[in-house]
Amino acid sequence: MKLIYFNGEVRAELIRLVLVQGGIEFEDFRFEFKDWPKIKAEGGFPFTQVPVLEVNGQKICQSRAIARYAARLAGLAGKNLEEEALADMYVSAIDDDVLENFWKCAYFEQDPEKKAELQKKFKEETVPKFLRNLDRLYESSGGDYLLGNSLTYADLAYYRMIKTVSGLVGDVSSDRLKSLYQRVAALPKIAHWEETKPKPAF
Amino acid sequence: MKLIYFNGEVRAELIRLVLVQGGIEFEDFRFEFKDWPKIKAEGGFPFTQVPVLEVNGQKICQSRAIARYAARLAGLAGKNLEEEALADMYVSAIDDDVLENFWKCAYFEQDPEKKAELQKKFKEETVPKFLRNLDRLYESSGGDYLLGNSLTYADLAYYRMIKTVSGLVGDVSSDRLKSLYQRVAALPKIAHWEETKPKPAF
Repeated sequence: MKLIYFNGEVRAELIRLVLVQGGIEFEDFRFEFKDWPKIKAEGGFPFTQVPVLEVNGQKICQSRAIARYAARLAGLAGKNLEEEALADMYVSAIDDDVLENFWKCAYFEQDPEKKAELQKKFKEETVPKFLRNLDRLYESSGGDYLLGNSLTYADLAYYRMIKTVSGLVGDVSSDRLKSLYQRVAALPKIAHWEETKPKPAF
Repeated sequence: MKLIYFNGEVRAELIRLVLVQGGIEFEDFRFEFKDWPKIKAEGGFPFTQVPVLEVNGQKICQSRAIARYAARLAGLAGKNLEEEALADMYVSAIDDDVLENFWKCAYFEQDPEKKAELQKKFKEETVPKFLRNLDRLYESSGGDYLLGNSLTYADLAYYRMIKTVSGLVGDVSSDRLKSLYQRVAALPKIAHWEETKPKPAF
Protein backbone atom coordinates (compact mmCIF):
# COMPACT_ATOMS: atom_id res chain seq x y z
CA MET A 1 0.00 0.00 0.00
CA LYS A 2 1.00 3.58 -0.64
CA LEU A 3 0.36 6.59 1.55
CA ILE A 4 0.33 9.83 -0.43
CA TYR A 5 0.78 13.15 1.38
CA PHE A 6 2.80 16.33 1.46
CA ASN A 7 6.24 16.12 3.00
CA GLY A 8 4.62 16.99 6.30
CA GLU A 9 3.09 15.42 9.37
CA VAL A 10 -0.16 17.31 9.97
CA ARG A 11 -2.88 14.94 8.74
CA ALA A 12 -0.75 11.92 7.90
CA GLU A 13 1.50 11.27 10.87
CA LEU A 14 -1.01 9.30 12.94
CA ILE A 15 -1.59 7.03 9.95
CA ARG A 16 2.17 6.50 9.63
CA LEU A 17 2.51 5.71 13.33
CA VAL A 18 -0.31 3.15 13.14
CA LEU A 19 1.22 1.44 10.11
CA VAL A 20 4.68 1.48 11.70
CA GLN A 21 3.47 0.07 15.01
CA GLY A 22 1.42 -2.54 13.16
CA GLY A 23 4.48 -3.62 11.22
CA ILE A 24 2.59 -2.99 7.98
CA GLU A 25 4.85 -2.20 5.05
CA PHE A 26 3.88 0.89 3.11
CA GLU A 27 5.36 3.29 0.64
CA ASP A 28 5.59 6.64 2.41
CA PHE A 29 5.16 8.77 -0.68
CA ARG A 30 5.77 12.45 0.06
CA PHE A 31 5.75 15.45 -2.23
CA GLU A 32 6.46 19.15 -1.95
CA PHE A 33 3.80 21.86 -1.95
CA LYS A 34 4.92 23.15 -5.32
CA ASP A 35 4.11 19.76 -6.88
CA TRP A 36 0.57 19.59 -5.52
CA PRO A 37 -1.16 20.92 -8.67
CA LYS A 38 0.55 18.26 -10.78
CA ILE A 39 -0.08 15.46 -8.28
CA LYS A 40 -3.70 16.53 -7.92
CA ALA A 41 -4.28 16.62 -11.68
CA GLU A 42 -2.82 13.16 -12.17
CA GLY A 43 -4.02 11.58 -8.97
CA GLY A 44 -7.65 10.62 -9.48
CA PHE A 45 -8.09 11.27 -5.76
CA PRO A 46 -11.64 10.79 -4.45
CA PHE A 47 -12.15 14.34 -3.17
CA THR A 48 -8.97 15.92 -4.59
CA GLN A 49 -7.45 15.92 -1.13
CA VAL A 50 -4.59 14.17 0.58
CA PRO A 51 -3.71 12.09 2.53
CA VAL A 52 -4.78 9.23 0.31
CA LEU A 53 -4.10 5.57 0.93
CA GLU A 54 -3.88 3.41 -2.16
CA VAL A 55 -4.70 -0.16 -1.35
CA ASN A 56 -5.78 -2.99 -3.67
CA GLY A 57 -6.29 -0.45 -6.46
CA GLN A 58 -8.67 1.53 -4.25
CA LYS A 59 -7.95 5.12 -3.19
CA ILE A 60 -9.18 6.06 0.27
CA CYS A 61 -9.05 9.63 1.60
CA GLN A 62 -10.04 11.41 4.83
CA SER A 63 -7.31 11.04 7.40
CA ARG A 64 -9.43 9.50 10.14
CA ALA A 65 -11.04 6.97 7.80
CA ILE A 66 -7.53 5.95 6.74
CA ALA A 67 -6.15 5.86 10.28
CA ARG A 68 -9.04 3.65 11.42
CA TYR A 69 -8.61 1.32 8.46
CA ALA A 70 -4.90 1.06 9.22
CA ALA A 71 -5.66 0.47 12.90
CA ARG A 72 -7.98 -2.40 12.06
CA LEU A 73 -5.39 -3.99 9.77
CA ALA A 74 -2.81 -3.49 12.51
CA GLY A 75 -4.93 -4.93 15.32
CA LEU A 76 -4.86 -1.54 17.02
CA ALA A 77 -8.53 -0.60 16.72
CA GLY A 78 -9.95 -2.28 19.84
CA LYS A 79 -11.09 -5.81 20.62
CA ASN A 80 -14.85 -5.47 19.96
CA LEU A 81 -17.37 -2.98 18.57
CA GLU A 82 -17.66 -1.03 21.83
CA GLU A 83 -13.88 -0.71 22.20
CA GLU A 84 -13.57 0.33 18.59
CA ALA A 85 -16.19 3.02 19.15
CA LEU A 86 -14.31 4.29 22.19
CA ALA A 87 -10.97 4.34 20.33
CA ASP A 88 -12.69 6.27 17.51
CA MET A 89 -14.13 8.63 20.09
CA TYR A 90 -10.68 9.42 21.51
CA VAL A 91 -9.13 9.92 18.09
CA SER A 92 -11.99 12.16 16.95
CA ALA A 93 -11.93 14.20 20.13
CA ILE A 94 -8.16 14.67 19.90
CA ASP A 95 -8.51 15.85 16.32
CA ASP A 96 -11.60 18.03 16.63
CA ASP A 97 -11.19 19.45 20.11
CA VAL A 98 -7.42 19.90 20.20
CA LEU A 99 -5.54 19.59 16.92
CA GLU A 100 -7.95 21.53 14.70
CA ASN A 101 -7.72 24.39 17.19
CA PHE A 102 -3.96 24.04 17.26
CA TRP A 103 -3.54 24.35 13.47
CA LYS A 104 -5.73 27.43 13.58
CA CYS A 105 -3.94 29.26 16.34
CA ALA A 106 -0.43 28.11 15.45
CA TYR A 107 -0.52 28.50 11.66
CA PHE A 108 -3.69 29.67 9.95
CA GLU A 109 -4.52 32.84 11.87
CA GLN A 110 -2.49 35.67 10.36
CA ASP A 111 -3.54 38.64 12.48
CA PRO A 112 -0.94 38.85 15.32
CA GLU A 113 -3.41 40.07 17.95
CA LYS A 114 -6.03 37.47 17.14
CA LYS A 115 -3.35 34.82 16.97
CA ALA A 116 -2.10 35.69 20.47
CA GLU A 117 -5.65 35.63 21.80
CA LEU A 118 -6.39 32.23 20.20
CA GLN A 119 -3.12 30.81 21.51
CA LYS A 120 -3.88 32.03 25.01
CA LYS A 121 -7.29 30.38 24.92
CA PHE A 122 -5.77 27.19 23.50
CA LYS A 123 -3.10 27.00 26.23
CA GLU A 124 -5.18 28.09 29.18
CA GLU A 125 -8.57 26.60 28.40
CA THR A 126 -8.77 24.16 25.50
CA VAL A 127 -5.84 21.89 26.34
CA PRO A 128 -6.18 21.82 30.15
CA LYS A 129 -9.92 21.08 29.91
CA PHE A 130 -9.33 18.32 27.39
CA LEU A 131 -6.54 16.75 29.42
CA ARG A 132 -8.61 16.84 32.62
CA ASN A 133 -11.30 14.81 30.86
CA LEU A 134 -8.76 12.50 29.28
CA ASP A 135 -6.99 11.91 32.57
CA ARG A 136 -10.24 11.00 34.32
CA LEU A 137 -11.17 8.58 31.52
CA TYR A 138 -7.68 7.07 31.51
CA GLU A 139 -7.79 6.57 35.25
CA SER A 140 -11.15 4.82 35.00
CA SER A 141 -9.83 2.50 32.27
CA GLY A 142 -7.72 0.95 35.00
CA GLY A 143 -4.95 -0.19 32.66
CA ASP A 144 -1.73 0.92 31.02
CA TYR A 145 -3.54 2.31 27.99
CA LEU A 146 -6.58 4.47 27.29
CA LEU A 147 -8.71 1.39 26.66
CA GLY A 148 -7.29 -0.69 29.46
CA ASN A 149 -4.57 -3.23 28.88
CA SER A 150 -4.23 -3.18 25.11
CA LEU A 151 -2.54 -0.55 23.01
CA THR A 152 -4.89 1.03 20.46
CA TYR A 153 -4.54 3.81 17.95
CA ALA A 154 -6.11 6.12 20.51
CA ASP A 155 -2.87 5.90 22.51
CA LEU A 156 -0.85 6.70 19.41
CA ALA A 157 -3.14 9.67 18.74
CA TYR A 158 -2.61 10.97 22.28
CA TYR A 159 1.16 10.59 21.95
CA ARG A 160 1.10 12.36 18.60
CA MET A 161 -1.06 15.18 19.97
CA ILE A 162 1.32 15.89 22.85
CA LYS A 163 4.29 15.91 20.48
CA THR A 164 2.42 18.42 18.35
CA VAL A 165 1.18 20.88 20.95
CA SER A 166 3.80 20.75 23.69
CA GLY A 167 6.02 23.33 21.99
CA LEU A 168 3.20 25.81 22.38
CA VAL A 169 1.54 24.77 25.62
CA GLY A 170 4.48 23.36 27.59
CA ASP A 171 4.43 20.42 29.94
CA VAL A 172 0.81 20.21 31.02
CA SER A 173 -0.14 16.54 31.27
CA SER A 174 -0.79 14.87 34.61
CA ASP A 175 1.81 12.38 35.84
CA ARG A 176 -0.53 9.59 34.82
CA LEU A 177 -0.85 10.89 31.25
CA LYS A 178 2.91 11.50 31.13
CA SER A 179 3.45 7.84 31.85
CA LEU A 180 1.13 6.98 28.95
CA TYR A 181 3.16 9.24 26.67
CA GLN A 182 6.39 7.64 27.78
CA ARG A 183 4.98 4.15 27.39
CA VAL A 184 4.07 4.89 23.76
CA ALA A 185 7.36 6.69 23.07
CA ALA A 186 9.24 3.63 24.38
CA LEU A 187 7.55 1.18 21.99
CA PRO A 188 10.53 -0.07 19.97
CA LYS A 189 8.91 0.49 16.57
CA ILE A 190 7.76 3.98 17.49
CA ALA A 191 11.12 4.93 18.98
CA HIS A 192 12.86 3.64 15.87
CA TRP A 193 10.46 5.60 13.63
CA GLU A 194 11.10 8.82 15.52
CA GLU A 195 14.83 8.35 15.17
CA THR A 196 14.82 7.51 11.49
CA LYS A 197 11.75 9.19 9.98
CA PRO A 198 12.14 11.65 7.11
CA LYS A 199 12.56 15.21 8.26
CA PRO A 200 9.27 16.90 7.37
CA ALA A 201 8.96 20.34 5.79
CA PHE A 202 6.23 21.15 8.36
CA MET B 1 -29.51 1.94 24.24
CA LYS B 2 -30.12 5.63 24.79
CA LEU B 3 -29.14 8.51 22.53
CA ILE B 4 -28.76 11.77 24.40
CA TYR B 5 -28.83 15.07 22.52
CA PHE B 6 -30.50 18.46 22.37
CA ASN B 7 -33.95 18.58 20.83
CA GLY B 8 -32.25 19.18 17.50
CA GLU B 9 -30.90 17.38 14.48
CA VAL B 10 -27.45 18.88 13.82
CA ARG B 11 -25.03 16.26 15.13
CA ALA B 12 -27.48 13.51 16.05
CA GLU B 13 -29.79 13.03 13.07
CA LEU B 14 -27.50 10.75 11.07
CA ILE B 15 -27.18 8.49 14.11
CA ARG B 16 -30.96 8.40 14.45
CA LEU B 17 -31.40 7.55 10.76
CA VAL B 18 -28.88 4.71 11.03
CA LEU B 19 -30.59 3.26 14.10
CA VAL B 20 -34.03 3.63 12.50
CA GLN B 21 -32.98 2.02 9.22
CA GLY B 22 -31.24 -0.75 11.15
CA GLY B 23 -34.39 -1.45 13.12
CA ILE B 24 -32.42 -0.92 16.34
CA GLU B 25 -34.59 0.17 19.24
CA PHE B 26 -33.27 3.19 21.11
CA GLU B 27 -34.47 5.80 23.50
CA ASP B 28 -34.34 9.11 21.65
CA PHE B 29 -33.67 11.26 24.71
CA ARG B 30 -33.89 14.97 23.86
CA PHE B 31 -33.53 17.99 26.07
CA GLU B 32 -33.83 21.76 25.70
CA PHE B 33 -30.87 24.15 25.63
CA LYS B 34 -31.85 25.64 28.98
CA ASP B 35 -31.42 22.22 30.62
CA TRP B 36 -27.91 21.60 29.26
CA PRO B 37 -26.04 22.85 32.38
CA LYS B 38 -28.04 20.43 34.56
CA ILE B 39 -27.72 17.51 32.11
CA LYS B 40 -23.99 18.18 31.75
CA ALA B 41 -23.41 18.32 35.48
CA GLU B 42 -25.23 15.04 36.08
CA GLY B 43 -24.23 13.26 32.91
CA GLY B 44 -20.73 11.92 33.46
CA PHE B 45 -20.23 12.43 29.72
CA PRO B 46 -16.75 11.51 28.43
CA PHE B 47 -15.84 14.94 27.06
CA THR B 48 -18.82 16.90 28.45
CA GLN B 49 -20.36 16.98 24.97
CA VAL B 50 -23.39 15.51 23.30
CA PRO B 51 -24.50 13.49 21.39
CA VAL B 52 -23.75 10.59 23.71
CA LEU B 53 -24.83 7.01 23.17
CA GLU B 54 -25.28 4.98 26.32
CA VAL B 55 -24.85 1.32 25.61
CA ASN B 56 -24.10 -1.54 28.00
CA GLY B 57 -23.29 0.98 30.72
CA GLN B 58 -20.72 2.64 28.48
CA LYS B 59 -21.03 6.25 27.32
CA ILE B 60 -19.72 6.96 23.83
CA CYS B 61 -19.45 10.48 22.41
CA GLN B 62 -18.28 12.07 19.14
CA SER B 63 -21.04 11.93 16.57
CA ARG B 64 -19.11 10.09 13.88
CA ALA B 65 -17.80 7.46 16.28
CA ILE B 66 -21.39 6.85 17.37
CA ALA B 67 -22.77 6.82 13.81
CA ARG B 68 -20.16 4.28 12.75
CA TYR B 69 -20.82 2.09 15.77
CA ALA B 70 -24.55 2.22 15.01
CA ALA B 71 -23.85 1.46 11.35
CA ARG B 72 -21.87 -1.62 12.26
CA LEU B 73 -24.62 -2.86 14.59
CA ALA B 74 -27.14 -2.15 11.83
CA GLY B 75 -25.19 -3.90 9.07
CA LEU B 76 -24.88 -0.56 7.27
CA ALA B 77 -21.13 -0.02 7.55
CA GLY B 78 -19.91 -1.93 4.49
CA LYS B 79 -19.17 -5.59 3.82
CA ASN B 80 -15.40 -5.64 4.47
CA LEU B 81 -12.61 -3.41 5.78
CA GLU B 82 -12.12 -1.58 2.47
CA GLU B 83 -15.83 -0.86 2.08
CA GLU B 84 -16.02 0.29 5.68
CA ALA B 85 -13.12 2.66 5.04
CA LEU B 86 -14.86 4.06 1.96
CA ALA B 87 -18.15 4.52 3.82
CA ASP B 88 -16.23 6.31 6.59
CA MET B 89 -14.55 8.44 3.94
CA TYR B 90 -17.89 9.56 2.52
CA VAL B 91 -19.35 10.31 5.91
CA SER B 92 -16.27 12.26 7.00
CA ALA B 93 -16.10 14.22 3.76
CA ILE B 94 -19.81 15.10 3.97
CA ASP B 95 -19.32 16.31 7.53
CA ASP B 96 -16.01 18.14 7.16
CA ASP B 97 -16.27 19.52 3.66
CA VAL B 98 -19.95 20.37 3.54
CA LEU B 99 -21.86 20.35 6.82
CA GLU B 100 -19.25 22.05 9.01
CA ASN B 101 -19.15 24.88 6.45
CA PHE B 102 -22.93 24.93 6.38
CA TRP B 103 -23.32 25.37 10.14
CA LYS B 104 -20.80 28.20 9.98
CA CYS B 105 -22.39 30.16 7.16
CA ALA B 106 -25.99 29.41 8.08
CA TYR B 107 -25.85 29.87 11.85
CA PHE B 108 -22.57 30.71 13.55
CA GLU B 109 -21.41 33.75 11.56
CA GLN B 110 -23.10 36.81 13.01
CA ASP B 111 -21.72 39.59 10.82
CA PRO B 112 -24.28 40.02 7.98
CA GLU B 113 -21.71 40.89 5.31
CA LYS B 114 -19.38 38.03 6.19
CA LYS B 115 -22.35 35.70 6.41
CA ALA B 116 -23.49 36.63 2.90
CA GLU B 117 -19.98 36.13 1.58
CA LEU B 118 -19.61 32.72 3.25
CA GLN B 119 -23.02 31.64 1.97
CA LYS B 120 -22.14 32.69 -1.57
CA LYS B 121 -18.94 30.65 -1.42
CA PHE B 122 -20.79 27.70 0.07
CA LYS B 123 -23.46 27.75 -2.66
CA GLU B 124 -21.28 28.53 -5.63
CA GLU B 125 -18.07 26.69 -4.81
CA THR B 126 -18.15 24.31 -1.85
CA VAL B 127 -21.31 22.37 -2.64
CA PRO B 128 -20.98 22.17 -6.45
CA LYS B 129 -17.35 21.03 -6.19
CA PHE B 130 -18.24 18.40 -3.60
CA LEU B 131 -21.20 17.11 -5.59
CA ARG B 132 -19.15 16.88 -8.79
CA ASN B 133 -16.69 14.62 -6.97
CA LEU B 134 -19.46 12.63 -5.34
CA ASP B 135 -21.31 12.17 -8.62
CA ARG B 136 -18.17 10.87 -10.34
CA LEU B 137 -17.51 8.43 -7.48
CA TYR B 138 -21.15 7.31 -7.42
CA GLU B 139 -21.10 6.71 -11.17
CA SER B 140 -17.96 4.61 -10.85
CA SER B 141 -19.52 2.51 -8.07
CA GLY B 142 -21.80 1.12 -10.76
CA GLY B 143 -24.67 0.38 -8.41
CA ASP B 144 -27.73 1.87 -6.79
CA TYR B 145 -25.79 3.12 -3.79
CA LEU B 146 -22.51 4.95 -3.15
CA LEU B 147 -20.73 1.68 -2.43
CA GLY B 148 -22.39 -0.31 -5.20
CA ASN B 149 -25.37 -2.51 -4.55
CA SER B 150 -25.70 -2.34 -0.77
CA LEU B 151 -27.07 0.52 1.25
CA THR B 152 -24.57 1.90 3.77
CA TYR B 153 -24.60 4.75 6.22
CA ALA B 154 -22.79 6.82 3.57
CA ASP B 155 -26.03 6.92 1.58
CA LEU B 156 -27.95 8.01 4.67
CA ALA B 157 -25.35 10.73 5.25
CA TYR B 158 -25.72 11.98 1.68
CA TYR B 159 -29.52 12.04 2.03
CA ARG B 160 -29.26 13.86 5.32
CA MET B 161 -26.81 16.40 3.88
CA ILE B 162 -29.10 17.29 0.99
CA LYS B 163 -32.06 17.70 3.35
CA THR B 164 -29.89 20.03 5.43
CA VAL B 165 -28.39 22.26 2.76
CA SER B 166 -31.01 22.36 0.01
CA GLY B 167 -32.93 25.22 1.65
CA LEU B 168 -29.84 27.36 1.20
CA VAL B 169 -28.32 26.06 -2.01
CA GLY B 170 -31.41 24.95 -3.95
CA ASP B 171 -31.70 21.96 -6.22
CA VAL B 172 -28.12 21.32 -7.31
CA SER B 173 -27.57 17.55 -7.43
CA SER B 174 -27.13 15.74 -10.73
CA ASP B 175 -30.00 13.54 -11.91
CA ARG B 176 -27.98 10.53 -10.82
CA LEU B 177 -27.52 11.87 -7.29
CA LYS B 178 -31.18 12.91 -7.17
CA SER B 179 -32.13 9.29 -7.81
CA LEU B 180 -29.93 8.26 -4.88
CA TYR B 181 -31.66 10.79 -2.66
CA GLN B 182 -35.07 9.54 -3.73
CA ARG B 183 -34.06 5.92 -3.25
CA VAL B 184 -33.06 6.65 0.36
CA ALA B 185 -36.13 8.81 1.00
CA ALA B 186 -38.33 5.95 -0.23
CA LEU B 187 -36.93 3.39 2.21
CA PRO B 188 -40.03 2.53 4.27
CA LYS B 189 -38.34 2.99 7.64
CA ILE B 190 -36.81 6.32 6.64
CA ALA B 191 -40.06 7.59 5.12
CA HIS B 192 -41.92 6.58 8.27
CA TRP B 193 -39.32 8.31 10.46
CA GLU B 194 -39.59 11.54 8.48
CA GLU B 195 -43.36 11.51 8.86
CA THR B 196 -43.42 10.76 12.55
CA LYS B 197 -40.19 12.12 14.03
CA PRO B 198 -40.32 14.68 16.83
CA LYS B 199 -40.34 18.25 15.60
CA PRO B 200 -36.87 19.57 16.45
CA ALA B 201 -36.20 22.98 17.94
CA PHE B 202 -33.39 23.44 15.36
